[in-house]
Amino acid sequence: MVGGGEGAFIGAVHRMAARLDDHYELVAGALASDPEKAVRSGLASGLNPARTYTDFHAMALAEAAREDGIEVVAIVTPNHLHAAVATAFLNAGIHVICDKPLANSVADAKRLQKLAAKRGLIFAVTYNYTGYPMVRQARQMVREGKLGDIRVVQVEYPQDWLSEALEGTGQKQADWRTDPARAGAGGCIGDIGSHAYQLAEFITGLQVSELCAELSSFVQGRRLDDNAQVMLRFADGARGHESTKSARGAEMTKSARGNELTKSARGALWASQVASGNENNLRIRIYGSRGGVEWRQEHPNQLLWSPLNQATQIMARATAGASSDAARVTRIPAGHPEGYVEAFATLYGDIALAIRHARSVKSSKAKTPPKLDPTVQFPTVADGVRGVAFIQAVVRSSARGGRWVRVVNG
Amino acid sequence: MVGGGEGAFIGAVHRMAARLDDHYELVAGALASDPEKAVRSGLASGLNPARTYTDFHAMALAEAAREDGIEVVAIVTPNHLHAAVATAFLNAGIHVICDKPLANSVADAKRLQKLAAKRGLIFAVTYNYTGYPMVRQARQMVREGKLGDIRVVQVEYPQDWLSEALEGTGQKQADWRTDPARAGAGGCIGDIGSHAYQLAEFITGLQVSELCAELSSFVQGRRLDDNAQVMLRFADGARGHESTKSARGAEMTKSARGNELTKSARGALWASQVASGNENNLRIRIYGSRGGVEWRQEHPNQLLWSPLNQATQIMARATAGASSDAARVTRIPAGHPEGYVEAFATLYGDIALAIRHARSVKSSKAKTPPKLDPTVQFPTVADGVRGVAFIQAVVRSSARGGRWVRVVNG
Amino acid sequence: MVGGGEGAFIGAVHRMAARLDDHYELVAGALASDPEKAVRSGLASGLNPARTYTDFHAMALAEAAREDGIEVVAIVTPNHLHAAVATAFLNAGIHVICDKPLANSVADAKRLQKLAAKRGLIFAVTYNYTGYPMVRQARQMVREGKLGDIRVVQVEYPQDWLSEALEGTGQKQADWRTDPARAGAGGCIGDIGSHAYQLAEFITGLQVSELCAELSSFVQGRRLDDNAQVMLRFADGARGHESTKSARGAEMTKSARGNELTKSARGALWASQVASGNENNLRIRIYGSRGGVEWRQEHPNQLLWSPLNQATQIMARATAGASSDAARVTRIPAGHPEGYVEAFATLYGDIALAIRHARSVKSSKAKTPPKLDPTVQFPTVADGVRGVAFIQAVVRSSARGGRWVRVVNG
Amino acid sequence: MVGGGEGAFIGAVHRMAARLDDHYELVAGALASDPEKAVRSGLASGLNPARTYTDFHAMALAEAAREDGIEVVAIVTPNHLHAAVATAFLNAGIHVICDKPLANSVADAKRLQKLAAKRGLIFAVTYNYTGYPMVRQARQMVREGKLGDIRVVQVEYPQDWLSEALEGTGQKQADWRTDPARAGAGGCIGDIGSHAYQLAEFITGLQVSELCAELSSFVQGRRLDDNAQVMLRFADGARGHESTKSARGAEMTKSARGNELTKSARGALWASQVASGNENNLRIRIYGSRGGVEWRQEHPNQLLWSPLNQATQIMARATAGASSDAARVTRIPAGHPEGYVEAFATLYGDIALAIRHARSVKSSKAKTPPKLDPTVQFPTVADGVRGVAFIQAVVRSSARGGRWVRVVNG
Repeated sequence: MVGGGEGAFIGAVHRMAARLDDHYELVAGALASDPEKAVRSGLASGLNPARTYTDFHAMALAEAAREDGIEVVAIVTPNHLHAAVATAFLNAGIHVICDKPLANSVADAKRLQKLAAKRGLIFAVTYNYTGYPMVRQARQMVREGKLGDIRVVQVEYPQDWLSEALEGTGQKQADWRTDPARAGAGGCIGDIGSHAYQLAEFITGLQVSELCAELSSFVQGRRLDDNAQVMLRFADGARGHESTKSARGAEMTKSARGNELTKSARGALWASQVASGNENNLRIRIYGSRGGVEWRQEHPNQLLWSPLNQATQIMARATAGASSDAARVTRIPAGHPEGYVEAFATLYGDIALAIRHARSVKSSKAKTPPKLDPTVQFPTVADGVRGVAFIQAVVRSSARGGRWVRVVNG
Repeated sequence: MVGGGEGAFIGAVHRMAARLDDHYELVAGALASDPEKAVRSGLASGLNPARTYTDFHAMALAEAAREDGIEVVAIVTPNHLHAAVATAFLNAGIHVICDKPLANSVADAKRLQKLAAKRGLIFAVTYNYTGYPMVRQARQMVREGKLGDIRVVQVEYPQDWLSEALEGTGQKQADWRTDPARAGAGGCIGDIGSHAYQLAEFITGLQVSELCAELSSFVQGRRLDDNAQVMLRFADGARGHESTKSARGAEMTKSARGNELTKSARGALWASQVASGNENNLRIRIYGSRGGVEWRQEHPNQLLWSPLNQATQIMARATAGASSDAARVTRIPAGHPEGYVEAFATLYGDIALAIRHARSVKSSKAKTPPKLDPTVQFPTVADGVRGVAFIQAVVRSSARGGRWVRVVNG
Repeated sequence: MVGGGEGAFIGAVHRMAARLDDHYELVAGALASDPEKAVRSGLASGLNPARTYTDFHAMALAEAAREDGIEVVAIVTPNHLHAAVATAFLNAGIHVICDKPLANSVADAKRLQKLAAKRGLIFAVTYNYTGYPMVRQARQMVREGKLGDIRVVQVEYPQDWLSEALEGTGQKQADWRTDPARAGAGGCIGDIGSHAYQLAEFITGLQVSELCAELSSFVQGRRLDDNAQVMLRFADGARGHESTKSARGAEMTKSARGNELTKSARGALWASQVASGNENNLRIRIYGSRGGVEWRQEHPNQLLWSPLNQATQIMARATAGASSDAARVTRIPAGHPEGYVEAFATLYGDIALAIRHARSVKSSKAKTPPKLDPTVQFPTVADGVRGVAFIQAVVRSSARGGRWVRVVNG
Repeated sequence: MVGGGEGAFIGAVHRMAARLDDHYELVAGALASDPEKAVRSGLASGLNPARTYTDFHAMALAEAAREDGIEVVAIVTPNHLHAAVATAFLNAGIHVICDKPLANSVADAKRLQKLAAKRGLIFAVTYNYTGYPMVRQARQMVREGKLGDIRVVQVEYPQDWLSEALEGTGQKQADWRTDPARAGAGGCIGDIGSHAYQLAEFITGLQVSELCAELSSFVQGRRLDDNAQVMLRFADGARGHESTKSARGAEMTKSARGNELTKSARGALWASQVASGNENNLRIRIYGSRGGVEWRQEHPNQLLWSPLNQATQIMARATAGASSDAARVTRIPAGHPEGYVEAFATLYGDIALAIRHARSVKSSKAKTPPKLDPTVQFPTVADGVRGVAFIQAVVRSSARGGRWVRVVNG
């Protein structure tokens, strides 16, 4: 692990997630750049002092050189360091699990994508909400056509913890997350808006092609946005998870009286850190021609499913209403809630399956190497690139006074 | 009453609303333009055949001529007739209660506004959601500064009843509400988006100055929009219900590091008729510097109040948590839900108080005429004008590909 | 109307309910026994002073003598007067609508039942929660066998308004409802527990045969119970709304290993007036061999339906999920909430249909008189008798230290 | 670990709980009594084969003899084995973590209590719902007097998984949990009713003194109860967590008119396995003279708090509304839900703190040994004894036809 020393939030979550299902052992780390803190944090995490590093370059080299060196690194530093750290470990031939956003520029992100491809390494980006069973169920339902053609996507991620100038108080999280030098060009939009965006694309299988955004900063002295409104146009291909040649193509004529039929999905995204009463209220609603779904992160074990002209159903994790994708990543019986750590651990679990698969492919002498279960899934460096492109597009649109811009990947 | 004959929905609601608190007696009507249907509908409503008209002009003249002529007319026709009918009754010296949207053009709406002012008549527009006690409470809380400076307004009104081409089936409501000739330039945005907009302005006391919109039509053959996304900028004057010279003015400098402080409230509005699983899911959330509120029309007896850095409270109608404005318009004890008809009746009740007050002013010989309770409130022709201007602005913005436009009143 | 003068709560509700659907006209009343107050209340209700009485005997006689005399009386006095007033009007040949509980003794209640039968008059008891559309839907679902054999009924009615000694403060409602002389032997159990009980029997079509109860009084100085726990055994005939010869009879053997199969439904009832945070939180859950339903009075437009081994469905008033019984008594579209007054008005509407039917039967010369729509339904004097028997049984059981007792009708 | 081999549910949960916070290492186990299965399960859990046992006696002896022997054993077998296994490990001087119910007779349970006391060992019973932060908050609020004198406790634990004769299908969980030989005398009441009971006592700090119960078996062939209704009388001492000399004593006179003031809290408990639509719907509501709280296990991060005559507040984990007891056992920020495994892990964490404390006391040479943080808490063998006594009392009461019986500890 790189980052995640004392006082960090997300590093501890990664460690719990890695531990929960017993797929990983934490054996080495550069948990902080300050040597003393690095050592202290390493000890607290039970690391062998010999494998407690203060420099990630040194760690990449040293671990690559060991016979029992790490197989995968988790990068949980502030955003501005992601690219450099990931580069070092990819170059050392080590798989990467990296926090989001992947980098502070699309160019950096794409370089990582190329490097990972070149080295044939797994590169996961922890858009962790994709680990929730009912999110996977929603994705499967879209993929199977249960919702029909996707029409409208409403996604939002309001919080309230930055309603006041917390960054002036020495609170570590507030400090770096509102600092352009460390967080990047997006404040609220980068920290949480990018999660909302990725979730929308993950479930629908559609890509946002254009957007129109307005970023605001409501708190005196704030250096980044703390509220973001975005309108979204999705690329053609209205039923998610399919080729862009939509089955709907034939219909896409003008309607009888001249109103133009809308050709692809539309949506809105709202992210805020100044919405009093909202903790981590990520919520997504997706409406298609055959029905709609709604999911809320704060009550993640349920998925509302509203088939057209029928009563809304409360689909619940681990019940008869759960889909096969959801069932595969369920640990405990229905009604015993699984939460945030479990969803995070599910990503770690699927990444572990992919790493084991990569191992077995490497060592296999069979003509047709073993196949990975196709329901194993996690966001990869490609999603990471899209996430950065999204943030950049939002910032660009807002800077132009709220003009429509394209989301450009490179 | 004009309009509201057989098969109509809103006419019956107006009649129940008028009856509930026993302030009105329905004595005359032009319930339909088809003579036979007008008579049949009049009989069904218990009207004296002598006061059952088939022509609203005739009705206005005849009733104005009677000593026991009607004191106020309720106009519940399709939208395109509102202006002509209202004009006839204003000219006859009769107060008007008119359904929304007020007219199909801003010019028509403003003509009504001038005429009503000239004749000194009451002109109410039934944006009926303003009659809910907890909506009034939210408005009062903003007015009293409980929310501080308003920052973000999220309002939405999704339905699902037009997810398919219902207008082709002969369903009367679908037929006229999707017909540009009768409904006007806005489909979904006119029918329900305008309610959402008005609610946002009613509660916050702020006015939308600019907006950026995208209208969509997802159903083959639909002639008007069935989904609308709108981003909103509110005019300066961040604390609602106050003069535009905001107390916040002094702060509105650039922040230390160059990010510009957002000077006024921002928001988003979503209206849809193709969102499966939504019945009349009007919902508004308003966040200010001191707290936020949330209200849902489908569970209207509660208001969520989230004071900054404190637990969210469930304020309920007719409990200790209810404000004075809410308490005044409450009929029955807490926990016995009041619904849509009651809220509508509250508008009718406040309009009745205003009419009685107008009577007493007329007949008063005192130097200082009696005052109307300042908490008596209902949307007037001015709100009607704003509502039309909003619809026009949305249509204009969308037609230009989603450009920011000003909401112009005249 | 008898009772319901100034300061009364339920009288005003009855009047709104009668007005809402325009089936009734209030033309005469003995609204209070105090002459001055009776006159004042009559005027406020728009009564002709000639038909404003201070004595219900006088009213019954006078109205019976008039050609345009009242057709039906609504009795909304405190409980102890119900029997005497109802007797007077029945003897005068006038239909009766009476508030619950019907009387303060089973004997009195049964006398009313006999008298009404003898006179061939309609006698409705306003267990008003039976007027909610989704309650009727639940009843219909049980009747149609959707729930299978009923096993468990959990019903509760908590309030909090008597958490302190409100009766000492001069509050009129608290005063009489906690006074044994006027309220009868049951406090909380009579006022609200009886509603919960009746609702359970109404929906299931089953009758409680035995119960075991504990009444408590938690507030110093309180003279009646303010909290009631009751365990219920229902009579045999596990599928509601059927003869007692249950289809399940054959199964009712001992099970293989000696445990005895439970032969009929079981349940629990909780009523409280000291449960802080509860307004009128009447809630019922019914579980059968094929599924369960849940309904809450504070959000009455939804009914949760959980078919065995399937996802729970949110059935909503006026949607595709609504049953025929529910649809018949629905006024406005889905998502526009109907509330307490509407449900009350539905009872009044069905009673009006019954009265009109009685009229048409009387005047009909046909061999087979016209039939009343079998879905017209309202609690009658028989339900009133059962309600009184229930209260008496609870009081008896509690007085014996919580022994099982039979619910005896007479 | 003893028990918890292949196909078991709760063993896997214990292992996740032990791992999550990194306080435990699983090093030895008798995971199954079948040798082959024991070995297979041990391997799957990463155990050293040398410490994989097939006999718990052998394991206790062997581990006690090793220098690096286990410090604590987790017992997760079916209920009937708990006592024998626990006895073996206590005799070997090893701390015990045991699943509930502790034993199948009060006598057995008390023997364990005495043995643990004699050996000075920690004995935790995993009533795991006590690990939820908001449960701890509720307990703290009662202890601090926020609720005033406790009056009413409503607790329920409905499930639906045994609505049909699942035990006939070979499902392992259904098989043993409905078998008197392995589950004990209580089916539903032992499996889940005992959790509900313990939760009520844990939060209120009160003890149930008497109860009246009815057990039912609704499914043909079922050998134990699948539904339980229980009425509860709590022992005197109305404010929880205090001595039995209640401050309220003085008030406990007859009230003016002869109604007796209720001297202690009353309650009801419902547990069911045949309530369609309920997964693990454990829910508790507690009402005192100053306010009420409500908590639901399926949405465990919120606690509803209804102070008398004020609006209900939604207290949420890790927000400003969280109490110190809740805050101590919170891992991740507000709005990121913690679930069942986390709560279970919190018990494991507190037990670890107690074990470490016991170690430090043992090795301390100070006059006053170090103190354990008084907010460290977990159910002990004493709670286990009470849990068994409760089950026995319910069975006894029901067997007598629903008579009130005392809950006798020994």
